[in-house]
Amino acid sequence: MYKLYNVKRWGSLSAHLVLEELGVPYQNIWLTPEQVRAREFREISPLGLIPALGLPDGRAITESAAIVAFLTDAHPEAGLAPPIGSNDHAVYLSSLVLMATNIYPAIELAFDARALADSEEQIAVIRRKSVQRSLDLFGIIEARLAEDGPFVTGDSYSAADIYLFMLTIWGHPSEQAVLNRYPHIASVVAHVRARPRLKAALEAHGALEARIAEAA
Amino acid sequence: MYKLYNVKRWGSLSAHLVLEELGVPYQNIWLTPEQVRAREFREISPLGLIPALGLPDGRAITESAAIVAFLTDAHPEAGLAPPIGSNDHAVYLSSLVLMATNIYPAIELAFDARALADSEEQIAVIRRKSVQRSLDLFGIIEARLAEDGPFVTGDSYSAADIYLFMLTIWGHPSEQAVLNRYPHIASVVAHVRARPRLKAALEAHGALEARIAEAA
Repeated sequence: MYKLYNVKRWGSLSAHLVLEELGVPYQNIWLTPEQVRAREFREISPLGLIPALGLPDGRAITESAAIVAFLTDAHPEAGLAPPIGSNDHAVYLSSLVLMATNIYPAIELAFDARALADSEEQIAVIRRKSVQRSLDLFGIIEARLAEDGPFVTGDSYSAADIYLFMLTIWGHPSEQAVLNRYPHIASVVAHVRARPRLKAALEAHGALEARIAEAA
Repeated sequence: MYKLYNVKRWGSLSAHLVLEELGVPYQNIWLTPEQVRAREFREISPLGLIPALGLPDGRAITESAAIVAFLTDAHPEAGLAPPIGSNDHAVYLSSLVLMATNIYPAIELAFDARALADSEEQIAVIRRKSVQRSLDLFGIIEARLAEDGPFVTGDSYSAADIYLFMLTIWGHPSEQAVLNRYPHIASVVAHVRARPRLKAALEAHGALEARIAEAA
């Protein structure tokens, strides 16, 4: 059985929603940010990264995009990813990794740039540039959805739409501002929020409705 | 047939080596950095990212970790990745994405931090912190190899070893300094360099031997 190390509204949200969609058995382990920072969690996740997914053989893996891709490919009967080896599967993996390597870190730096800075002034510069970069990147996704949508991989809903949804709830200056600016992304988000299997998990993360308040 | 948009010693090296190992037909398209920056390349790669992989249906994808995972999973007969759905496949994907989302950007910022800074002073701070972070992250990989090696996914060579090799050739303060510091990583690198099918591609990228000069 899988174990999901989960923090409300953190990167584990994507893995949580995928596990719910797949309908596979898993143990959900809620952690607080303090528990994530504790030394003992480093034995599961050496970099202190959330999510971590405990595997049936006792090992654990990290990286939300890898966890999502692993789960959907391991359980193809759920149809949450295009078939392995197809051109659509290439687009699926590329979209997941593009979001993980570009949008995710831009949003993270927009929240907290202390690891790269020596002063409040430097933090402010990095935050400003990172907010703009996250918006530019959402704009690239929006353009692709307009051309090849309505979903991230084209005609079919996939876990890449779940991943995009997760990124939008962290949007700057607010989630609702990102959705207002990018209507095709907003349509993906509305689809994800309307999935019956996801309602309970979305509710648990406090993500059933878009937030209109400005991000911290 | 696949098309690889390739720049010497850039991120396309990993996809290039994987295509060579797989022995599948592909068209190799060498680009200069100037050609990558040209407006027309944005039609293939909207963010100007290298590598881009042209798919048989005419679309193109980016993100080196996604291209590597797509190719190895689409051609399982080559044995360059653990079987889909296995625990080892989870470790494989997680390792690829961890390297792509953590080590790769740290090394990039160590080379060029202008996108996040307003002054030379800020660039220097980000560079210094990023060099240290890249070394810390290689240290995490080294510890995993010491415990669960000799390869990134354990007993079997996989494309994740090729990806790790690529990161080391960009190492700071030099490639050789990283290998001297981390003997288990050096052993993976030596294995990759000794693969007969990779010799020509390594030579084309100027990566057959470790560089001892300090990185720029």
